[in-house]
Amino acid sequence: MGFSAAVAGASGYAGGELLRLLLGHPEIEIGALTAGGNAGTLLGQHQPHLTPLADRVLAETTTETLAGHDIVFLALPHGQSAAVAASLPDDVLVIDCGADFRLEDPADWQRWYAGEHAGTWPYGLPELPGQRDRLRTARRIAVPGCYPTVASLALLPAVAAGLIDARDLVVVAASGTSGAGRSPKPNLLGSEVMGAVSAYSVGGIHRHTPEIEQNLRKVAGGPVTVSFTPVLAPMPRGILATCTARTQDGVDAAAARRAYQQAWAAEPFLHLLPEGTWPTTAATVGSNAVHAQVTVDERAGRLVAIAALDNLTKGTAGGAIQCMNLALGIAETTGLSTVGVAP
Amino acid sequence: MGFSAAVAGASGYAGGELLRLLLGHPEIEIGALTAGGNAGTLLGQHQPHLTPLADRVLAETTTETLAGHDIVFLALPHGQSAAVAASLPDDVLVIDCGADFRLEDPADWQRWYAGEHAGTWPYGLPELPGQRDRLRTARRIAVPGCYPTVASLALLPAVAAGLIDARDLVVVAASGTSGAGRSPKPNLLGSEVMGAVSAYSVGGIHRHTPEIEQNLRKVAGGPVTVSFTPVLAPMPRGILATCTARTQDGVDAAAARRAYQQAWAAEPFLHLLPEGTWPTTAATVGSNAVHAQVTVDERAGRLVAIAALDNLTKGTAGGAIQCMNLALGIAETTGLSTVGVAP
Amino acid sequence: MGFSAAVAGASGYAGGELLRLLLGHPEIEIGALTAGGNAGTLLGQHQPHLTPLADRVLAETTTETLAGHDIVFLALPHGQSAAVAASLPDDVLVIDCGADFRLEDPADWQRWYAGEHAGTWPYGLPELPGQRDRLRTARRIAVPGCYPTVASLALLPAVAAGLIDARDLVVVAASGTSGAGRSPKPNLLGSEVMGAVSAYSVGGIHRHTPEIEQNLRKVAGGPVTVSFTPVLAPMPRGILATCTARTQDGVDAAAARRAYQQAWAAEPFLHLLPEGTWPTTAATVGSNAVHAQVTVDERAGRLVAIAALDNLTKGTAGGAIQCMNLALGIAETTGLSTVGVAP
Amino acid sequence: MGFSAAVAGASGYAGGELLRLLLGHPEIEIGALTAGGNAGTLLGQHQPHLTPLADRVLAETTTETLAGHDIVFLALPHGQSAAVAASLPDDVLVIDCGADFRLEDPADWQRWYAGEHAGTWPYGLPELPGQRDRLRTARRIAVPGCYPTVASLALLPAVAAGLIDARDLVVVAASGTSGAGRSPKPNLLGSEVMGAVSAYSVGGIHRHTPEIEQNLRKVAGGPVTVSFTPVLAPMPRGILATCTARTQDGVDAAAARRAYQQAWAAEPFLHLLPEGTWPTTAATVGSNAVHAQVTVDERAGRLVAIAALDNLTKGTAGGAIQCMNLALGIAETTGLSTVGVAP
Repeated sequence: MGFSAAVAGASGYAGGELLRLLLGHPEIEIGALTAGGNAGTLLGQHQPHLTPLADRVLAETTTETLAGHDIVFLALPHGQSAAVAASLPDDVLVIDCGADFRLEDPADWQRWYAGEHAGTWPYGLPELPGQRDRLRTARRIAVPGCYPTVASLALLPAVAAGLIDARDLVVVAASGTSGAGRSPKPNLLGSEVMGAVSAYSVGGIHRHTPEIEQNLRKVAGGPVTVSFTPVLAPMPRGILATCTARTQDGVDAAAARRAYQQAWAAEPFLHLLPEGTWPTTAATVGSNAVHAQVTVDERAGRLVAIAALDNLTKGTAGGAIQCMNLALGIAETTGLSTVGVAP
Repeated sequence: MGFSAAVAGASGYAGGELLRLLLGHPEIEIGALTAGGNAGTLLGQHQPHLTPLADRVLAETTTETLAGHDIVFLALPHGQSAAVAASLPDDVLVIDCGADFRLEDPADWQRWYAGEHAGTWPYGLPELPGQRDRLRTARRIAVPGCYPTVASLALLPAVAAGLIDARDLVVVAASGTSGAGRSPKPNLLGSEVMGAVSAYSVGGIHRHTPEIEQNLRKVAGGPVTVSFTPVLAPMPRGILATCTARTQDGVDAAAARRAYQQAWAAEPFLHLLPEGTWPTTAATVGSNAVHAQVTVDERAGRLVAIAALDNLTKGTAGGAIQCMNLALGIAETTGLSTVGVAP
Repeated sequence: MGFSAAVAGASGYAGGELLRLLLGHPEIEIGALTAGGNAGTLLGQHQPHLTPLADRVLAETTTETLAGHDIVFLALPHGQSAAVAASLPDDVLVIDCGADFRLEDPADWQRWYAGEHAGTWPYGLPELPGQRDRLRTARRIAVPGCYPTVASLALLPAVAAGLIDARDLVVVAASGTSGAGRSPKPNLLGSEVMGAVSAYSVGGIHRHTPEIEQNLRKVAGGPVTVSFTPVLAPMPRGILATCTARTQDGVDAAAARRAYQQAWAAEPFLHLLPEGTWPTTAATVGSNAVHAQVTVDERAGRLVAIAALDNLTKGTAGGAIQCMNLALGIAETTGLSTVGVAP
Repeated sequence: MGFSAAVAGASGYAGGELLRLLLGHPEIEIGALTAGGNAGTLLGQHQPHLTPLADRVLAETTTETLAGHDIVFLALPHGQSAAVAASLPDDVLVIDCGADFRLEDPADWQRWYAGEHAGTWPYGLPELPGQRDRLRTARRIAVPGCYPTVASLALLPAVAAGLIDARDLVVVAASGTSGAGRSPKPNLLGSEVMGAVSAYSVGGIHRHTPEIEQNLRKVAGGPVTVSFTPVLAPMPRGILATCTARTQDGVDAAAARRAYQQAWAAEPFLHLLPEGTWPTTAATVGSNAVHAQVTVDERAGRLVAIAALDNLTKGTAGGAIQCMNLALGIAETTGLSTVGVAP
């Protein structure tokens, strides 16, 4: 129990998943739990699965309540992280699960989120080439969005190896409902989502688009454009991203597979499935694993890469813990599993 | 009750949906119900929702049991329709829900299904330009597959109007599990599919691909290539198809919407949603309706058309009844609803 | 189209189901659609499955907007029906889907709902002995709650035939989420209910309890007490009620079955399943049917009766239409189906 | 890594859950994995979530393949355990997840299972009074069925404290589909179970009934009779058991709560929820926890106790690991979590 961690936004889904993982983490002592509107209530009312913390009272999210921890996780609505982070000492490890510090280009922020750009923090995707080392010394980390995590990982090896035309990438990703958060909205009622697959934010307007492009641009050696369509699927957790792009001349399935094997050979959480096997989100539930497969449809001239992960774990809280481990100088996989809870 | 109809394959999902619709059809008397391995059992054991027919004994699928009806629906495994159809008189209306007679090019059949090509019947998609009139006089009709129905309808107006590059169409479609039929397989168990989205037949190998291309080629004025990825979603019914393609110069969202409005103005079952609204499969359950929306992602240079339908209704049995109505000379919408059962 | 009908509360689940059924009803013209907070918006925003009415603007629920119809359906929050009903002429058929007028005993109302008792209207359960005839002349009808419908129907034959001890009835009923309505609450989010079965209102505190007892008391010839436990199940529609009670001496499964057969012989919507077959809610979805089975566990000395129905159809809106048909003097089954939408 | 464990039946759901837990257990090295019909295939084909073991080849279940381990888990179809166990040395810890050795009375076995009774092993429910100590020295352990675990735990404190009439207990329990195993059957297809709640084995015929009675008889001081109705719910995991019984005179909710608090004060996996809170299966998924609540419906004169657990974890594999820990002399909670994976 070397380090103490506070979680701001403990009553939401990201906060709950952070706490689930921290409860199983051997090096962390859980400190303050804070909330917005739910401050003053018991954690058990919101997170009935976290029985060891059931009697904890949620504090207000303030400088005072978050003070004195080694690590502070922010799982707040967009736009609230900057003020909180500014009040924390520089040597505190602050890990933001929100969007505020993910984008590097203020013009991107302006275009997709509007309002003032809070700044840019080291981006919490260790699998991005070169990024792991940066995270080891970071004290401020911006964890990627769930869609950018899965889409970027699915496409990075193909883009980096120059197998595809990165100027016209097509991503269609089906997500479970927890990705939409816990604020009750009519369209997220169980009655509405069970038995239904629906599309939303269609036509290049989803805010995760620039983040995917920013990640792929790091390895593309040229312009990157993504057409991204998110789809809502009737399950609580999981994203399956289907990514396709035109292949460069002569690229076949074997070449594609080789590129992924090489890129992921040393990655603890990225799992290329056996040839002919395609991912299911169910196999990743509760784990920090990404399951993926790639092939080339030679007739259509397109590479197809499909990746699955748990949006709350590797897509948010597990990714955050992975970054924390790096920044704390402990084994990257501590407290994280590659084994899903299935069926 | 002017016409009598037999259903071969009455214990499967397509057969059950045919019977559900025929029970509500004012012009049809339900005749023989036949099955393969389930012959000799009661329909009620297999279709507990069809209580008015619960005590009907399933007969063997033979020339004799199917004889003497005005209409014979075939909902049989691939490869079994030809022999049955050959034994039925030419003036009997035979409607095949299987794949045997859908493809026009024997080479396509050979490539995608292997074995001998049974032949080609008039294709049961009335919304395909010119097809409605052909169906009015047909006595043999091949009903489209569920994926080809939704993908073709989603893309036909854009291809016909020359808005997109038809040589590189990308279709990612999420389907409910009933599309995989009723034969018990481990991967279709409830324990496996609930809480899971998974991909299958990836890389241009799904047999519905040539059928989509065949349909779009009718209006394309040039070559058509589709990259098609099917996805299995945790719901019994419904398909949501996300279709994207590069736009031709100058095509914007308004132009796209106009093309769909014009193409579908007189279509009783094709419903272009209000601007800004995207389809959910839930709204189409049990109905013969297709809900769709289209836009252009100008930044990415791609048109995105999304369509939803019930794979068992408009995608199979409802489409079959629609064709039957045309071939019988009665109102095309008889016995079919545009209203889904939701939530 | 002999009669015009208005629906107050058209943007909720009960209202939507009423409209779905009325759209298929041959004798009804749909008139005013009204709402509370959603007044001024389009119906299509709330009920995307009701495309024929998509462009209808929701009016305020007022005396004026509801005036001039032959029938007015009230699908309002509890406590709002009385004032609206009082403003409508006596010869208008008013059918209330809420609780306000269901209970006969003001003391019951006081105990379970608190506040002033609005009064008692003829109870809209035609299958209650003697009730069908009363409904034929009624101009005010209180439609039962969904749980009381299924639990009462499941137990009526056994209580009426004196097979069981009615002073100690045990009902455990699992309901889909639409029974909880459309107001967004955190515990009804898809993320919460998918993959979860939970209990609520346990310990004899659910307000449907006195309604079940009131129904069974009509045939019991003595006191009736029900222990009722509602359970929330991960599906949009359907209730399965498991009802058990101590058998009187000498009652066996055959006797129980006979009692149900006799009681239901002429009932168009009550379906006793073949011996050995137990109900599934799926078979009743969208239909007005009740599927049931009964047996006696002789070792334990208990009768077990299980019934399934669609809470929105027979449990609410279908039951309302059935009552309307009776009150209008048209065939009781008009516009209602006994065939579910399955799988 | 002090102990080696083999799992017979590794390709099924119980086997998969055993392996998931063993992979996270600090004292166990996973040895032979065996199967019946799936012998010769890779584990990864059947358990895609267990990536660290994906390349393991499933061996035949034989004396030879199971030899040489400290612990052998049997997750076999009923009737196969006895022969396998007989071939293993007496000092090997054999833990059977099947029914063969659970019942003490050969007459019970004969009545409920037919065929010869294999014998009786120490019963793997540590929470049964006195049982924990017996398990510490056992080398053969029969793990309870999933329903008996939840129903027995829900009722034990009330029966032991004499709060209720144990001669007439009523249990209605809704289970996820994994409890029905992995053999593909038509009624377990996703298309059938999604959107459906159904009853089965009704009327006192489910084989878990005598096991529940056997457990409660240990504390009842008199005869015990259970009326048990299992219900299938649309979720992969979880059981919610609703248990009611007539209260003895003067028993109120406070007395009931006290009895449970006292009985469970030292139990690491039994969690009595805060007053007024009722369990949801979702909060227990993947954990070894049981969440429960109890009250008294004084009007109806019945105690209502409701418990939730994960049928594959505490209901099968987690319970088995808990017993293993006891028998190995290590901490009972090793490798087991009380924290569920939610939402």
